[in-house]
Amino acid sequence: MSEKVKQLPYEDNGEPEGLNATLTSPIAADGRPEPGKRYIVPARQGRAVRLAQGQRLKIINTYGSQVCDFWAFNASSPREFLSMEHLRTWLSRLTPVVGDPLVTNHRRTILTFLEDTSPGVHDTLLTSCDIYRYQKLGVEGYHDNCADNLRMALKAIKLRTAEVPSPLNLWMNNPVQADGSIGWLTPVSKPDDYVVFGAEMDCIVVMSACPQDLVPVNGKDCQPADLHFEVI
Amino acid sequence: MSEKVKQLPYEDNGEPEGLNATLTSPIAADGRPEPGKRYIVPARQGRAVRLAQGQRLKIINTYGSQVCDFWAFNASSPREFLSMEHLRTWLSRLTPVVGDPLVTNHRRTILTFLEDTSPGVHDTLLTSCDIYRYQKLGVEGYHDNCADNLRMALKAIKLRTAEVPSPLNLWMNNPVQADGSIGWLTPVSKPDDYVVFGAEMDCIVVMSACPQDLVPVNGKDCQPADLHFEVI
Repeated sequence: MSEKVKQLPYEDNGEPEGLNATLTSPIAADGRPEPGKRYIVPARQGRAVRLAQGQRLKIINTYGSQVCDFWAFNASSPREFLSMEHLRTWLSRLTPVVGDPLVTNHRRTILTFLEDTSPGVHDTLLTSCDIYRYQKLGVEGYHDNCADNLRMALKAIKLRTAEVPSPLNLWMNNPVQADGSIGWLTPVSKPDDYVVFGAEMDCIVVMSACPQDLVPVNGKDCQPADLHFEVI
Repeated sequence: MSEKVKQLPYEDNGEPEGLNATLTSPIAADGRPEPGKRYIVPARQGRAVRLAQGQRLKIINTYGSQVCDFWAFNASSPREFLSMEHLRTWLSRLTPVVGDPLVTNHRRTILTFLEDTSPGVHDTLLTSCDIYRYQKLGVEGYHDNCADNLRMALKAIKLRTAEVPSPLNLWMNNPVQADGSIGWLTPVSKPDDYVVFGAEMDCIVVMSACPQDLVPVNGKDCQPADLHFEVI
């Protein structure tokens, strides 16, 4: 990896860059994991991981009710990324389940959904929290947010993106009602539930332990928690 | 407007640029409409229109069963755009209805949904058709597609974007079932149904008369049709 920040085709978008330790805490300088090692995604932070084709990523909901905002980018062409609108179109379904391909904006499989010990309640409809969300909720000053965590996690391994694709919100529980309204409920997962994704191409994945502490998406007590992951 | 192509903060993304007349048929060099004039969006093509705050855009489904892929960008900061994932989050609902704000990725209102003579069946879940979609459908060579129409329509008025936001698919009929599956049905709109959007900020909107002719999203006969619009 180059020592200087690798300029992806996108310029930085000039938004607030984020102020938490995500930026200074990569799992390795180039994001390459040590196979079998258990890593933490601390509450309110994000981590980027470089996966080789054939590797498997296990994401663990250690405390049971933490939402993980999840993204994946083609390692050699980051303009290609996991896209929720392409995924729904591909599957003709709102939410992926075990066995499904996770497809990019180029309609190629970047990951396969291999295992899920939870009841399978995940969200593809809602955007990441961002600084604008917390401003609307009345927060003054900075608030950790998943969009900034994505940018910081990538920058921590010397990558940049201005694009914040719509995330796969693991364990987020926002059911669609018959009238098209979207509910806001707490996760139904339990401690140590996990999902496993298999990399179908070399890719960079990012996980954010959602810092939402004003709306109970991460459990009723509004206390964001750590997540863990392993690459196998 | 500068005579040379104005470089937006994004670089062009290197995808096929598109081969139809969208690129050479802007409504005006700078996209500014003549108020009250009826404009065409020819079948399979796209058009970009520059709206001033306070203007209203009327989009007419002239033949009744044509889907219109629709986007909107902040005129002064095109990294801010109408975002389906932010819209669903804002509304806690899959689809906007008359009276709703249409919000951007900065969670601001760019347009207000003012009128709708159709039954209100629109889609926010599915991505635009793109060259990859038609390749997967077995098309050899180029096929018109909404993603390219967006890029060409912008370029025709000397703007560029590599970002293809998830579109608001006007009149597209893809109902969500109780099990989370997404149906593929034909529009329930009738000839001359229209929607009206009011511009809440200076913005650039793009309409594409979806060229899908292999899957019956634009009516049972798979014949893409013209749309029309007026700015008032």
